[in-house]
Amino acid sequence: MHKTKIVILGACPGGMMTAVRLQKSLNLKEAEIILINKEDYHYQTTCLHENAAGTLHHDRTRIPIRNIIDLDKVHLIIDKVVTIKPEQKQVKLEKQTIEYDILVIGLGFETESIGFPEITENAFSIKDINSARLIKDHIEYNFANYHNEENNEARLNFVIAGGGSTGIEFAGELADRVPELCREYDIEKLFVRVILLESSNTVLSEFEPELAEYAAKSLEARGVEIVTGAEVKECQPEYVIYEKNGEEVKLPTMTTIWAGGIRPNPILETSGFRTTDGKMEVTDHMRSKEYKEIFVVGESALLKNESGQAYSPSVDTAMKQAAVIAHNIKAGFNNTRLKQFRTKTKGKVVSLGNEDGIAVMINGSTFYGWKAAFMKQLRDNKYFFHLGGISLLMQKGKFHLFY
Amino acid sequence: MHKTKIVILGACPGGMMTAVRLQKSLNLKEAEIILINKEDYHYQTTCLHENAAGTLHHDRTRIPIRNIIDLDKVHLIIDKVVTIKPEQKQVKLEKQTIEYDILVIGLGFETESIGFPEITENAFSIKDINSARLIKDHIEYNFANYHNEENNEARLNFVIAGGGSTGIEFAGELADRVPELCREYDIEKLFVRVILLESSNTVLSEFEPELAEYAAKSLEARGVEIVTGAEVKECQPEYVIYEKNGEEVKLPTMTTIWAGGIRPNPILETSGFRTTDGKMEVTDHMRSKEYKEIFVVGESALLKNESGQAYSPSVDTAMKQAAVIAHNIKAGFNNTRLKQFRTKTKGKVVSLGNEDGIAVMINGSTFYGWKAAFMKQLRDNKYFFHLGGISLLMQKGKFHLFY
Repeated sequence: MHKTKIVILGACPGGMMTAVRLQKSLNLKEAEIILINKEDYHYQTTCLHENAAGTLHHDRTRIPIRNIIDLDKVHLIIDKVVTIKPEQKQVKLEKQTIEYDILVIGLGFETESIGFPEITENAFSIKDINSARLIKDHIEYNFANYHNEENNEARLNFVIAGGGSTGIEFAGELADRVPELCREYDIEKLFVRVILLESSNTVLSEFEPELAEYAAKSLEARGVEIVTGAEVKECQPEYVIYEKNGEEVKLPTMTTIWAGGIRPNPILETSGFRTTDGKMEVTDHMRSKEYKEIFVVGESALLKNESGQAYSPSVDTAMKQAAVIAHNIKAGFNNTRLKQFRTKTKGKVVSLGNEDGIAVMINGSTFYGWKAAFMKQLRDNKYFFHLGGISLLMQKGKFHLFY
Repeated sequence: MHKTKIVILGACPGGMMTAVRLQKSLNLKEAEIILINKEDYHYQTTCLHENAAGTLHHDRTRIPIRNIIDLDKVHLIIDKVVTIKPEQKQVKLEKQTIEYDILVIGLGFETESIGFPEITENAFSIKDINSARLIKDHIEYNFANYHNEENNEARLNFVIAGGGSTGIEFAGELADRVPELCREYDIEKLFVRVILLESSNTVLSEFEPELAEYAAKSLEARGVEIVTGAEVKECQPEYVIYEKNGEEVKLPTMTTIWAGGIRPNPILETSGFRTTDGKMEVTDHMRSKEYKEIFVVGESALLKNESGQAYSPSVDTAMKQAAVIAHNIKAGFNNTRLKQFRTKTKGKVVSLGNEDGIAVMINGSTFYGWKAAFMKQLRDNKYFFHLGGISLLMQKGKFHLFY
């Protein structure tokens, strides 16, 4: 008897949640589940900025896949996806080629370079555990070098390019970390600059002006310099040049963090799928419109609501999509009814370091300060709970006390 | 009434111990004690290799001067010595010039470059807290970079040039640290190489062959590759070239630690004193033979015993010299008898990581393994005790348990 081969690409939140649901619901005599991922661990993307600033150890952010997935039920392959061949129902990996009957694509995101590779190639970006850990060590290494050179200010200037939520959240964490770094490396705080460059006229432009202003003030109170209307023109290993009001400013720095947004994994495009901004359009069953045996989850899925508006991707959305996908795969075996993806946006939360934040709810109510920081924590904890139950929550969850 | 101005240069072990003794014994109505140092802390040079490997935090090695010295009794000036003018009885610092009646020179050591600045300028050396901390962070930074590049083995090859006690002790600590670094950065130990290059035919040539061999075996058992008869020819930021048996070997590495010995601070030479190998000859009262108001302690002091042999410098020796200097300065006020410096060599101890070591006593008996490691610990602890009493010992002392 031929077992149906279900291949899940990527241990991103959507991929993981699909596997978690399928390992419980499917009859493994009729189906084989294969999960393919570059590493043997999953990580929570919403915490990477903390790992990069060094305020949270990366082992608090990542989870060995074997802790969540029953490897007797799901076959885990550690390999990198090279291309998908939908006509042959094959996925080419670096070390082998895998056939599938049902494919779930959840390959996550990469950093958006907005068409300026010459700017971003000398900048760091927060995209995964490896890059976040590198940023942390790069910052520390510059502090360590300072007293071994003659007053090189480039070592202690840290530039964040982009005032969206990634840039702001990272700036908040770094502002929290700087005093600790100053103690560790015997450097006066006075000499350390954290400079956030934003090309538009305000940071967090997707938020209400009073919330964005609150966030800016919170960061500035902790020493972050925010420069709006500043367009990055050049980024070299030892300096950055930005233009503001027609004038060019050269900033000596050995650390530029590119926080200019994210885009879906380009493998969909390079594999020849029909895409819009790198995303594949899906039905509300989360199924590709081109290939009915392909499901897409998370960043790569383009799903429009009744009024034609695309859902904005979030970890929360991806988890719900995964539940729909797992249900619909199971329904395919039983010929039961398919589920449709329906969700309301939950509002937005941005943390500003450990003890501050802003949030806006779907009903329009807004929160500042520790309440918002607490909401962000709740959200992270809820994620752990849904993925791995109480035990994962207790192991990785955040239980800061606010006072 | 003119107070006698006693100026101590350097918070090295000898300088610190002189200040500690003088602040107790002198009548501060007739004498003023000034201690000049680059930093506001003192550190234990015998632990720097542990800080550099990352097995001991640098705060365990250094002590704020104010914790040991009563700053109501001793005037501490944080500044760098530029030159000494013995004819004018002046010391020129970067920010001011200081007059003295009595001068104690204890300026410590720097790394010996053995006439090859072109080799050592791309290498790291373990000379103070700043350089040790930089090495630690440089090693970590290379580990962090590894997964962000395409298999660059230079990141994970660590070369130690010099198989004397500094090189061996550092190799021992690094061997202890590597497994921890591998866990932290998700790297298989297999990929990490620690390579120790020694130009002569044996490491630790000042030790008996069986002890040197024991040390080599201990390191090799923990993965250190020891190459004897290897002369370093070139050291670049991304590789090292050494010659062995007439053949040149190129080793890709971004980390070369130069462990080729130390030499006294060159300020004695550049100030125009008569020196031998950078050291100033002193009488057995620890007084300069040229200028009777100048005392010299530690690395910079050249003192010969009755048979004309120079005492080899060590922290232990410097502490004893300082006690003699403090006594003789006090005696100068009271016109009492001067003390002479007399000491026996105590034997030598070399640690090989946390739990192993070798030691040879003055009576010729030898020790291996945890006993020798324990003796090294005892020696470090004794130092803290002599300098700052029980409270400093409890604060900074090492109390590893051996089993």
